[in-house]
Amino acid sequence: MHNSFGTLFKISTFGESHGPAVGVVIDGCPAGLDISVEEIQQEMDRRKPGQSRITTQRQEGDEIEVLSGIFEGKSTGMPIALLVRNQDQRSKDYSHIADQFRPSHADYTYQVKYGHRDYRGGGRSSARETAARVAAGAVAKQLLRQWGIEVFAWVSQVGALALEKSYQELDLTKIEDSIVRCPDLEMAEQMIALIDETRKNRDTIGGVVSAVIKGVPPGLGEPVFGKLHAALGGAMLGINAVKGFEYGSGFKGVEMLGSQHNDTFYKDEGKVRTHSNHSGGVQGGISNGEDIYFRVAFKPVATIMMDQPSVNTQGEAVQVSGKGRHDPCVVPRAVPIVEAMAALVIADFYLLNQTSKLRG
Amino acid sequence: MHNSFGTLFKISTFGESHGPAVGVVIDGCPAGLDISVEEIQQEMDRRKPGQSRITTQRQEGDEIEVLSGIFEGKSTGMPIALLVRNQDQRSKDYSHIADQFRPSHADYTYQVKYGHRDYRGGGRSSARETAARVAAGAVAKQLLRQWGIEVFAWVSQVGALALEKSYQELDLTKIEDSIVRCPDLEMAEQMIALIDETRKNRDTIGGVVSAVIKGVPPGLGEPVFGKLHAALGGAMLGINAVKGFEYGSGFKGVEMLGSQHNDTFYKDEGKVRTHSNHSGGVQGGISNGEDIYFRVAFKPVATIMMDQPSVNTQGEAVQVSGKGRHDPCVVPRAVPIVEAMAALVIADFYLLNQTSKLRG
Amino acid sequence: MHNSFGTLFKISTFGESHGPAVGVVIDGCPAGLDISVEEIQQEMDRRKPGQSRITTQRQEGDEIEVLSGIFEGKSTGMPIALLVRNQDQRSKDYSHIADQFRPSHADYTYQVKYGHRDYRGGGRSSARETAARVAAGAVAKQLLRQWGIEVFAWVSQVGALALEKSYQELDLTKIEDSIVRCPDLEMAEQMIALIDETRKNRDTIGGVVSAVIKGVPPGLGEPVFGKLHAALGGAMLGINAVKGFEYGSGFKGVEMLGSQHNDTFYKDEGKVRTHSNHSGGVQGGISNGEDIYFRVAFKPVATIMMDQPSVNTQGEAVQVSGKGRHDPCVVPRAVPIVEAMAALVIADFYLLNQTSKLRG
Amino acid sequence: MHNSFGTLFKISTFGESHGPAVGVVIDGCPAGLDISVEEIQQEMDRRKPGQSRITTQRQEGDEIEVLSGIFEGKSTGMPIALLVRNQDQRSKDYSHIADQFRPSHADYTYQVKYGHRDYRGGGRSSARETAARVAAGAVAKQLLRQWGIEVFAWVSQVGALALEKSYQELDLTKIEDSIVRCPDLEMAEQMIALIDETRKNRDTIGGVVSAVIKGVPPGLGEPVFGKLHAALGGAMLGINAVKGFEYGSGFKGVEMLGSQHNDTFYKDEGKVRTHSNHSGGVQGGISNGEDIYFRVAFKPVATIMMDQPSVNTQGEAVQVSGKGRHDPCVVPRAVPIVEAMAALVIADFYLLNQTSKLRG
Repeated sequence: MHNSFGTLFKISTFGESHGPAVGVVIDGCPAGLDISVEEIQQEMDRRKPGQSRITTQRQEGDEIEVLSGIFEGKSTGMPIALLVRNQDQRSKDYSHIADQFRPSHADYTYQVKYGHRDYRGGGRSSARETAARVAAGAVAKQLLRQWGIEVFAWVSQVGALALEKSYQELDLTKIEDSIVRCPDLEMAEQMIALIDETRKNRDTIGGVVSAVIKGVPPGLGEPVFGKLHAALGGAMLGINAVKGFEYGSGFKGVEMLGSQHNDTFYKDEGKVRTHSNHSGGVQGGISNGEDIYFRVAFKPVATIMMDQPSVNTQGEAVQVSGKGRHDPCVVPRAVPIVEAMAALVIADFYLLNQTSKLRG
Repeated sequence: MHNSFGTLFKISTFGESHGPAVGVVIDGCPAGLDISVEEIQQEMDRRKPGQSRITTQRQEGDEIEVLSGIFEGKSTGMPIALLVRNQDQRSKDYSHIADQFRPSHADYTYQVKYGHRDYRGGGRSSARETAARVAAGAVAKQLLRQWGIEVFAWVSQVGALALEKSYQELDLTKIEDSIVRCPDLEMAEQMIALIDETRKNRDTIGGVVSAVIKGVPPGLGEPVFGKLHAALGGAMLGINAVKGFEYGSGFKGVEMLGSQHNDTFYKDEGKVRTHSNHSGGVQGGISNGEDIYFRVAFKPVATIMMDQPSVNTQGEAVQVSGKGRHDPCVVPRAVPIVEAMAALVIADFYLLNQTSKLRG
Repeated sequence: MHNSFGTLFKISTFGESHGPAVGVVIDGCPAGLDISVEEIQQEMDRRKPGQSRITTQRQEGDEIEVLSGIFEGKSTGMPIALLVRNQDQRSKDYSHIADQFRPSHADYTYQVKYGHRDYRGGGRSSARETAARVAAGAVAKQLLRQWGIEVFAWVSQVGALALEKSYQELDLTKIEDSIVRCPDLEMAEQMIALIDETRKNRDTIGGVVSAVIKGVPPGLGEPVFGKLHAALGGAMLGINAVKGFEYGSGFKGVEMLGSQHNDTFYKDEGKVRTHSNHSGGVQGGISNGEDIYFRVAFKPVATIMMDQPSVNTQGEAVQVSGKGRHDPCVVPRAVPIVEAMAALVIADFYLLNQTSKLRG
Repeated sequence: MHNSFGTLFKISTFGESHGPAVGVVIDGCPAGLDISVEEIQQEMDRRKPGQSRITTQRQEGDEIEVLSGIFEGKSTGMPIALLVRNQDQRSKDYSHIADQFRPSHADYTYQVKYGHRDYRGGGRSSARETAARVAAGAVAKQLLRQWGIEVFAWVSQVGALALEKSYQELDLTKIEDSIVRCPDLEMAEQMIALIDETRKNRDTIGGVVSAVIKGVPPGLGEPVFGKLHAALGGAMLGINAVKGFEYGSGFKGVEMLGSQHNDTFYKDEGKVRTHSNHSGGVQGGISNGEDIYFRVAFKPVATIMMDQPSVNTQGEAVQVSGKGRHDPCVVPRAVPIVEAMAALVIADFYLLNQTSKLRG
């Protein structure tokens, strides 16, 4: 259950880390959209393993195959199925942990819930599944661009190294200029050094991905249980290793007074605007036309290259040894995933809002 | 759209702040549950306005009427409809803002989205709607109790006054011992003083509600898009005024190393347990049997008793003056709402997990 | 579960036959619709018991109370909750069958499924629940009228008395001219006589309701699992006592050759039309702009005024005696229910189709 | 939208008739089910084109590839993705109709709804999409067998040739003994002759598929909008070319009296049974443990080998000439599709019913 996401722009993902393939079916993409498969591939390349020295060295081409829904270069309104074959599986790396529960992985909980599980590389709990989300998100991004909407995400913290600058102070065109995807290149250097050091210590470290969505028109979001920020938060918390989400003023807003926090309105060139934007572009769950921005906390990756105490499926005490190829820090590769999920949420609510535009 | 919440234990709420009533329909409550209407009423009383000097002075009896689904004291498996009539509406308090957009309220976004809105007290964007959620949550709580599950929430921060103690260090039976609902009674005094002062200044202030769910069996939650913590986070972010959510190690976990953060397993009296619980009781999106704990950030209430610059529906600059009766700090009354939403999420996933227990 | 219907124009009904009330929450009605509560009441009156000598003599005012979602006479886009209090409940009529299973009723199946049930008048399995559907359908009808769409249903068969005329040969303005709701007044007389005779025999009899939907634009319906006629069929089969559904050529179409059955196209005043309409206005699951027409088969009402052999909850053989007040033939009162469900389906697909109108 | 089916045992299909592949993702299959890929293949072979002289001569291997969700021969509870590559596409057969609307096909309605469509062989409106449903249904069948449930479908009518025998009078093991899939082999001969003759006349003809589901326990189905027979009916009406559905006494039940139609209860070996079964195994929308049986009407296939008048996308009058390879009568190949959809519905409601078994 719950391998689908979205209401009108709906995706369903499938596939395990070490099975034949991962893939996604997008149901609800409007017809007539020019879809560039190369652009989908570019997003895949931003997420794929082995892209730099600070990511896992698993090698995957992550080449996208279009199975349906695109005809003569355009979407047809029918389900778009996208497939990525798995290549560098090395399942034998996992045989030693087939009956062990790796600490802070999903091994134990899947075993309890399903009884029978694909233990190779975490099966479906592996972040490899996010390749399917990135593929779908790349289609959503192309749709959003038609509507003048753009999503930017970047690494704003690694361990204790936190970029204190707000997104307005950053040059977001520089995100891809460093392998860690921090647009402040000085900070990027420090982050890379910290990740390098952590990897040498056979350890892992957490981080924060920040994001801003520009160009969202007012009116997206649904009252009560479909608040736009709640959907974004739910989407982000659904990404592997995420521990927290805040938008607008976030946890710091707690300390503010109402008189400081309120975003007063004014009119600018025929548009209703707000002086400040502590609301993060969303008021009462509905976009108000200002930038939507948020932060996503990622824990350190659970797979470390050390021995750790655990138990096995028989309940016996064991030592789990760290093998396999893993990221010392997940955030650089999480950037396109955050963007993909944000794009999927916005596309979905944009479609939903079409029906609100009808009047009796 | 999106006035429903949940998949198998599903609620649909209705009603505006100043309309005839608010209510909820619960679809999916298992049959045969003894339902105490008094217990529902007790939860209503914990949320209701006018309960203490630090809440709004609007007076509502918030008396629950059962319209369906309960027969001879037990649930029948049919929809349970619960109704609360609005009493102390004072709609005229709002006539002066009928065509004004109050800063950081939903007035502007609703106007843009729907064209026609009930401007009295925020209509459906008012926190009055949460009365319906608390009623439904009170049924969910009674169901969870049958399964040995309990939810506790409390105020852990008001403005900059933060309770640094973890939940294990607190006596959760004392939550109701102070009107601010902080179980550390010394801190509670300080919080109350701060709220009093803020109200005297005609201002408002934010806060944090913390929560722990005890007794959740391993196996609740669904892979990928139905992760238990993502559902909890989405639910919390759907509560009015919430700006952030974190669970387990949360944003602080970012700074940890994997070797510090990982929760190693051991066996204790036949049960697989973890030594630490940075995972917050959820691994790979599925409960592991440990306590589930999380924190929810609330911004300062938008209605302040001061004049603020704004625009009206014609786009003209106006001064919005603060009238009406509002909470200087939302968190004391948010406690039962957080508990209600948590109970609804857990009940839903408990039911969903029944189907996972089938084996081919 | 499954007390909701629809995707974007979604209704949730609640309430038992002999509980305090039945009601419905409509989620997704576009904002700004002028809603006439009198028109809702008129539809209620068409369905209500005691309306003529050939229906049950239970007396219900079936007065509609609006609880939310309508402000200053217009929909606000928020949930519209409508309530009908039950009045003439006479629960004691049912005490004698509290532990008996009435043949061809839902008593046995509810008992098995839920263990605990409201046995008074069938509880929620009673056709009284359809009052809530008619209320919601009356809102949908007002919405459809804005879009130029109208739904007509009438009685076309009672027992073996079948009206052989097609809908084009009938004067649909005469539906309400007879208490049996057959627009052919000669046939209506015969039908009424047959129902009278059946009732005198303490028996019941089946019938057919036919319907046509006029003014549906081309494009409504979704491929594969959301075919418009499948949604209509599913909706009709969800009405109490329905045993069959056919649209367009229906079961008789089976005997035709493709060369007879195909509806060839031509152009008429700028519109693509078909010469014949065996397709019943739907091709490939999507409306083509022609009239949509269908037929719904209703079995004879299960409650007869005779003794019948059965078993009780202890599995003992018993005689169930027919008491209470029931319809000798359900179809006259089923007419507004068929219309309501059809209107709900069309409203839902009209909204869904808005999103198809977007182009990439 | 609406390319998914089911609530807890949910399938999502994708793929066009003349694209690279068709496929299906099954979300919600319980873990631990032994899945035989050969059995899936056998069902595919029952549906596949070119299987006999009375079906289309398009040649497709329809070989199933498992992409995910099965590990070491068992389901894992994760999405099961099944893929069938298209082989014998002959897209050039369709170039002549790229801008023409074939009568009684979905060409016109898709063009209106989506603007841009895959015109080759009907794209997604083609019955080729049902290959994906049969694959998913074959998994559902294996699941149902674990629970003692079996589905049988057969051809009971071709044109005016109607098998008057009830299912109890037939030997259902003989369904596969004739290429027309009628278990009465004498009638089968006549049906085959009629289809042969129709094909020689370059025409097509309709038919009826009957079905029975045996072994369904009491309790499946949900009240009001989730009635089991309504779900079956909706599912059947979603199959290409279906015009009608009836269950139990169906349209003939209309002519019966309540005293004839009611199924009186008795106790047999500890089980509550009914003497007759006009209810078709479903009472109040919930299975009562008796056989569930129904009939599905199929119109004649729209593609005939004759010239027909039509219009093109420019609205000009044209003659559409019949080319391509099509079935003269769809019902023999529809048999496994009816079985598949029935199995999917029952599997879904079986899972849903697990949650009803919980008691407060």
